[in-house]
Amino acid sequence: MKRWLVNGEPDTNLMPFDRGLTYGDGLFETIAVRAGECRFFGAHYARLVVSCRRLSLPVPAQEGLLEGATQLIGNDADGTLKIIVTRGAGARGYRLPDDPQPTCIIGFSPEAPPAVPDSGVRVRICRTPVSANPVLAGMKTLNRLEQVMARAEWDDPEILEGIMLNVREELVCGTMSNLFLVARGQLWTPVLDESGVHGVMRSQVLDLADDLGIPCTEQRLAVSLLDEADDVFLTNARVGIWPVAELDGRTYQRNDVTLQLRRGLAERGVIECAD
Amino acid sequence: MKRWLVNGEPDTNLMPFDRGLTYGDGLFETIAVRAGECRFFGAHYARLVVSCRRLSLPVPAQEGLLEGATQLIGNDADGTLKIIVTRGAGARGYRLPDDPQPTCIIGFSPEAPPAVPDSGVRVRICRTPVSANPVLAGMKTLNRLEQVMARAEWDDPEILEGIMLNVREELVCGTMSNLFLVARGQLWTPVLDESGVHGVMRSQVLDLADDLGIPCTEQRLAVSLLDEADDVFLTNARVGIWPVAELDGRTYQRNDVTLQLRRGLAERGVIECAD
Repeated sequence: MKRWLVNGEPDTNLMPFDRGLTYGDGLFETIAVRAGECRFFGAHYARLVVSCRRLSLPVPAQEGLLEGATQLIGNDADGTLKIIVTRGAGARGYRLPDDPQPTCIIGFSPEAPPAVPDSGVRVRICRTPVSANPVLAGMKTLNRLEQVMARAEWDDPEILEGIMLNVREELVCGTMSNLFLVARGQLWTPVLDESGVHGVMRSQVLDLADDLGIPCTEQRLAVSLLDEADDVFLTNARVGIWPVAELDGRTYQRNDVTLQLRRGLAERGVIECAD
Repeated sequence: MKRWLVNGEPDTNLMPFDRGLTYGDGLFETIAVRAGECRFFGAHYARLVVSCRRLSLPVPAQEGLLEGATQLIGNDADGTLKIIVTRGAGARGYRLPDDPQPTCIIGFSPEAPPAVPDSGVRVRICRTPVSANPVLAGMKTLNRLEQVMARAEWDDPEILEGIMLNVREELVCGTMSNLFLVARGQLWTPVLDESGVHGVMRSQVLDLADDLGIPCTEQRLAVSLLDEADDVFLTNARVGIWPVAELDGRTYQRNDVTLQLRRGLAERGVIECAD
């Protein structure tokens, strides 16, 4: 991040025994800034609130986050905003502090919106599994080491994402994205009750599919469904829909369902999905 | 921590986008300082080296860590030393930086050695499961949010530790300790190939049991083994052996095996285990 605030103060650094560092005891949001606005801010904030409650973390005020974001974005049009909320400092040990003083970090990097080729991207399946824990499932917590280890499995710059399976070898998510398959005339996406993150763009796609009358099933998905899928795509707050061209030897071409969803997202302001 | 060094500099704070914070991309060690010495430093350092290699993290030099520890401990006799190694700052995204600049944090808090009652402590079984991931199993990584959530399940100051099960409801570990059972005339401890931390005190106990001719089996252990156990104890670098007096209604009394091991640890410098 090029510019940041820690608890509202610019260029401040972090206490080295903040629980965000020592235990990953916190949450984050990565938000696309387009034309100077935090895209889907309301949805990001709503997810943060729900996750803070699950972790018994004090909820940061929406106004403070928006003020910080405005200050950091300045006159830049496009970039990435990151919000981190931790349980702050506290006595040693896992026990929750009696009087938590959460740390709120906001960072911004100006960047052009990423190019998302219509033809799709190359993707692989990772050996590193995603672990299952219903207590943490769905949240964007600071515990992301398994994603780091999965991403470390390849170096080929042509491969843009890796799909992670759980230990039962079911499809779960990409290292930094959610996964959708088009098969048997409908959408399929892994249910995230045991692992994975409820992505903001994933929710947009589910909502859009509902609007467009495209059936979508959230359930446990065997890897073998990749073999009968007509199309596969990934979703992420910074790119919208990332079509998959090739996945470990399987090739996919754009299906009408995917194209409809991309157009729909473009209409909702996801300019990366515009033709 | 009362005093600290970041990359050798006193009182320095941490960049808020260090990967240790953003992803929990790092490791830590918690070392008991007794009579001014870092107890079992060699074993802690050896575990750190093995874990750094597994995570492709540069290994911090032993001399630097010891110099930092000496500087922080000063004239204090007893306390807790914490070493944190992270992958440092880096471009946004999970991908490993091409030229990692790890962050090394050393902190020290002077504290009297904890009292460990002979009669044992009260312990509970946590609802929060410990998740399984062979890629991370055994290491003391900065991803500890499930331990935080498990510890948040109780407030009763009389209960000192919680036992965590995996999603198959097998015994794994305490939130901050390893677990041993004495049953059928021998020792049993959960195998840690899927989850848990290879504790330094656990290794001491395994080694000591071998020396004393006490058979010990490391394997998957069903919760039901607690019902037939003659004794149960926990191990941790700061306390040695913590005998369990009561565990969710089951009561235990000190068995000869436990007493032998406590005496053996006391002889190896774990003064908390001395009579």
